[in-house]
Amino acid sequence: MRVAYQGEAGAFSESAARRILGGDIVGVPCHSFERMFAAVGDGDADCCVAPIENSLAGSIHRNYDLLLESQLTIAGETSMRIVHNLIAPPDAALDRIRRVYSHPVALAQCARFFTTHPHLEAVPVHDTAGGVRMVMDRRRDDEGAIASATAAEIYGGRVLLESIEDNAQNYTRFFLLTAADRARDVVLRETPRRWKTSIVFRVANKPGALFRALGAFAIFEIDLSKIESRPVAGRPWEYAFYLDLAGKSDDAQVSRALDNLIGMAEMVRILGSYPTRW
Amino acid sequence: MRVAYQGEAGAFSESAARRILGGDIVGVPCHSFERMFAAVGDGDADCCVAPIENSLAGSIHRNYDLLLESQLTIAGETSMRIVHNLIAPPDAALDRIRRVYSHPVALAQCARFFTTHPHLEAVPVHDTAGGVRMVMDRRRDDEGAIASATAAEIYGGRVLLESIEDNAQNYTRFFLLTAADRARDVVLRETPRRWKTSIVFRVANKPGALFRALGAFAIFEIDLSKIESRPVAGRPWEYAFYLDLAGKSDDAQVSRALDNLIGMAEMVRILGSYPTRW
Repeated sequence: MRVAYQGEAGAFSESAARRILGGDIVGVPCHSFERMFAAVGDGDADCCVAPIENSLAGSIHRNYDLLLESQLTIAGETSMRIVHNLIAPPDAALDRIRRVYSHPVALAQCARFFTTHPHLEAVPVHDTAGGVRMVMDRRRDDEGAIASATAAEIYGGRVLLESIEDNAQNYTRFFLLTAADRARDVVLRETPRRWKTSIVFRVANKPGALFRALGAFAIFEIDLSKIESRPVAGRPWEYAFYLDLAGKSDDAQVSRALDNLIGMAEMVRILGSYPTRW
Repeated sequence: MRVAYQGEAGAFSESAARRILGGDIVGVPCHSFERMFAAVGDGDADCCVAPIENSLAGSIHRNYDLLLESQLTIAGETSMRIVHNLIAPPDAALDRIRRVYSHPVALAQCARFFTTHPHLEAVPVHDTAGGVRMVMDRRRDDEGAIASATAAEIYGGRVLLESIEDNAQNYTRFFLLTAADRARDVVLRETPRRWKTSIVFRVANKPGALFRALGAFAIFEIDLSKIESRPVAGRPWEYAFYLDLAGKSDDAQVSRALDNLIGMAEMVRILGSYPTRW
């Protein structure tokens, strides 16, 4: 299974792919989310793993947009705690390090660490795993990087300090995306406990329209686990709603609820039904 | 009026502050969102301007969290189109530039520009305005930066190319935040056309609970302009909902609807009622 992801080998997205699919995958690293979706569309990869929301930074709308523009469907999901580690060449020592490389978002999430280690200079680079690769290429004893333990392993770095992020409640949720006709071929690593369905819909811009749309699910007592409104580009005061609900789209009650929604909404698209482990 | 914001002089947040309050403000640049909130809490600033959501990247949950932890209230809002420009010293020419500095998010949002200008190397730095300052300090004819036109003005740079971002639908929404007892002192630049109220609430984890909560607003035909669920940290399968609605919290119908919600929700907090221009 060839799995496209954004970033270099050792990126958090690659770990998420192994978590969903097991270790037996071939990674297809991509420079951008656009290229990652294109890799699946062009047949260079069988599927891709896209970060879709972070517990601190929110939903990654760019990936929702790319999912809507594509013909892909959600075939699985996982959530990963994002742990930032200080990584350096094996013979490096903390008191000799002066410069620490990482993506600025990772550097910002370790602000407290830099405050308590004022001799360290935070230097921004394009991505976390790429910073480790660069530090390991140069092998200077005064340079380190902040990235995942997996990145340390891949490039032969040593974790000098574990979990240096300010806020431990830092989780990212990833979708496994594949062509709709291939979703059944995706072999997930574990038997799922539960299923979830993600949809997007648009209703007329009237007070109470969302209330009535949710009524479609409420009357069948279907559990909703995420709702998010988003302005529709070029149509002021109109909103699309992203909804995650418990169950498969072909379960009897879910299917009835979706029929209700289709009857009243201007647009409904089922983004996928997928097994979940959380 | 001393206004705290995250970033250096010329940051998009500073432009947002002038848009809401007019030009007669004293900027208090802060290194992080945490320090920005602390500046208002400690009395080093009268208010702060916080980015709260971006049309591509989504809600900035960190600032919602800091708002909840603080005693501040929303006193105003604005939305700014994020325009990225290529900026260089006044005597620089596009064909001599080799390195372009900016925040990685800004660099990524200009991916197409770098594809069509392959002789340019994208170099990440901590923030957009800081990149312009650095380029103008060094005044090399082979270096440029990507940032707002305001940053070019402040540091004496010249805009070589305007609006080089891939996606023009790039808007950031900002809240003006101040101590609750000072919200009335904030003099806004223009007379508001409309008011909005932002609230956060938590309901019991039962199917239909959100449906009933929205019913509190639907029966009074109150327009909702944003809804977003967010997992409650440490309480799996419980969600807080962020809601924006049309009107002031002391309008008769809004006040009745909020009373309904308070009667059924586990927690309701009014984050502020504020004038809006969009």
